[in-house]
Amino acid sequence: MGIKNGVVLVLSGPSGAGKSSLINKIKEDIGDYYFSISTTTRPMREGEIEGVHYHFVTEEEFKKDIEKDNFLEYAIVHGNYYGTSIKPVKQALSEGKLVLFDIDVQGNTAVNNRLGDITTSVFITPPTLSELEKRLNGRSTDAPEVIAARMSMAKREIQRISEYDYVVVNDDLDEAAEYLKLIAKTARLKKSNEEINRFVQQWEDI
Amino acid sequence: MGIKNGVVLVLSGPSGAGKSSLINKIKEDIGDYYFSISTTTRPMREGEIEGVHYHFVTEEEFKKDIEKDNFLEYAIVHGNYYGTSIKPVKQALSEGKLVLFDIDVQGNTAVNNRLGDITTSVFITPPTLSELEKRLNGRSTDAPEVIAARMSMAKREIQRISEYDYVVVNDDLDEAAEYLKLIAKTARLKKSNEEINRFVQQWEDI
Repeated sequence: MGIKNGVVLVLSGPSGAGKSSLINKIKEDIGDYYFSISTTTRPMREGEIEGVHYHFVTEEEFKKDIEKDNFLEYAIVHGNYYGTSIKPVKQALSEGKLVLFDIDVQGNTAVNNRLGDITTSVFITPPTLSELEKRLNGRSTDAPEVIAARMSMAKREIQRISEYDYVVVNDDLDEAAEYLKLIAKTARLKKSNEEINRFVQQWEDI
Repeated sequence: MGIKNGVVLVLSGPSGAGKSSLINKIKEDIGDYYFSISTTTRPMREGEIEGVHYHFVTEEEFKKDIEKDNFLEYAIVHGNYYGTSIKPVKQALSEGKLVLFDIDVQGNTAVNNRLGDITTSVFITPPTLSELEKRLNGRSTDAPEVIAARMSMAKREIQRISEYDYVVVNDDLDEAAEYLKLIAKTARLKKSNEEINRFVQQWEDI
C-alpha cells in the first residue's frame, strides 16, 4: 500500500525461556528490524553495556520521564523500574522497521493498548517449570534468590499466556526458531488502522 | 503440544478478488487442509457440481437445518440462503486440519464468535473498485444485474476490513500468493483455549 509502515513484535516469556538465543537464530531472516532497548533503574551487572542491554538511569531520571509521558509502557519488577521510551519506537516505525520488544505480560498489555493494530505478540516458554529451573540453575549469573523470584514470576505469567497471539514452546531450539521466524514474517503483513483507512478511501476513488 | 488440533483460516473478499486463484496457487504448500463447502438454496449454475462448489438444498431443507442448530453460520445474500454446516468442520478440526472458509464479513463475525481462538482471518481485495469492475466484466458468467449487486456488496464489505487480522491486496498474483501462504502457515501455530489450558495445567506438574 505504498507508504512504509513499521509493525511490532512483542516477545514475552521468563528469563531462561531462550528468547535471546531465538532472536539470534532468526535475526538474519526477518528483514530490517529495531530491537527496543528498555530503560531501567536496576544496577548494571557485570558484562552489561549501556545502550546495548539497557539504558541505565537513576530513579530520579526515570520518574521525570514518567511525568513527561515519555514511556510507551513501564513497570516495577522486583523493586526496579523498567520502561520503553516512545521516541525511538516511533522513529523505527516511521522507517518501516519490525520493532521487537522483549517485555513482560504487563508490557504486552500496554503496547497492545497503544499499538494493537500493528502488534503481534508471542509468549515463549520452556516446556515445563522444572525445565525452566534447570536452565536457570545452569546459568552462573543469578543468585538463588533471583532464581526464586524468576520462578515465581514465571508461574504468574504463564497464567496469562492466552492474552498472546501465539505461544511458542521452546523445547527444540531449531523448531522454535522456525515457528518464530514464520510469526515474525507474517507480523510484517499487519496494517495500521490509518493505513487501512487510507486504502479504503482511495479504493473507490481511482 | 501433542494432541492434534485443527485451526481455521477465513478468506473473505468480493467475487473477482481472486480468492480461487490464490487458493489454487498455495494449496500444495499449506499441509493437510479441508476446504469448507457451503450449503445454499440458490439455483445451481452451469458447470457447478453438487458437493464441490456447494451443497445445493431447498429452502425447506435449509430452514430445517437452522432449527436443528446445524450451522456454524448462515446468512441471506441476494435473496438466497448460504450456510456452513458444523459437522464436517468439527471432524476436520479433530483431524488437525487447516479448515479454509470462503465466507463473507457476516460469516467471519459468526466464525470468530464460535472459534475465535483458533481463527485467522484474511480479507482479499482487488487494488481498486474499478479494477474489480473490470475483472467482473471480463468474466462471461455473470449477468449485468449480478455484477451490479456484487459491486455494491463489495463497497459495503470493504468498509469492514479492519475486522480482519490481515488484508491482502491482490494486485500481483504471485506476491499475494506468497503473503497468503505465510499467513496460512502461521495460522497453523494458533492454539485453542483448551490446548492452552491443558498446557498450563501440566506445565507445573511435570
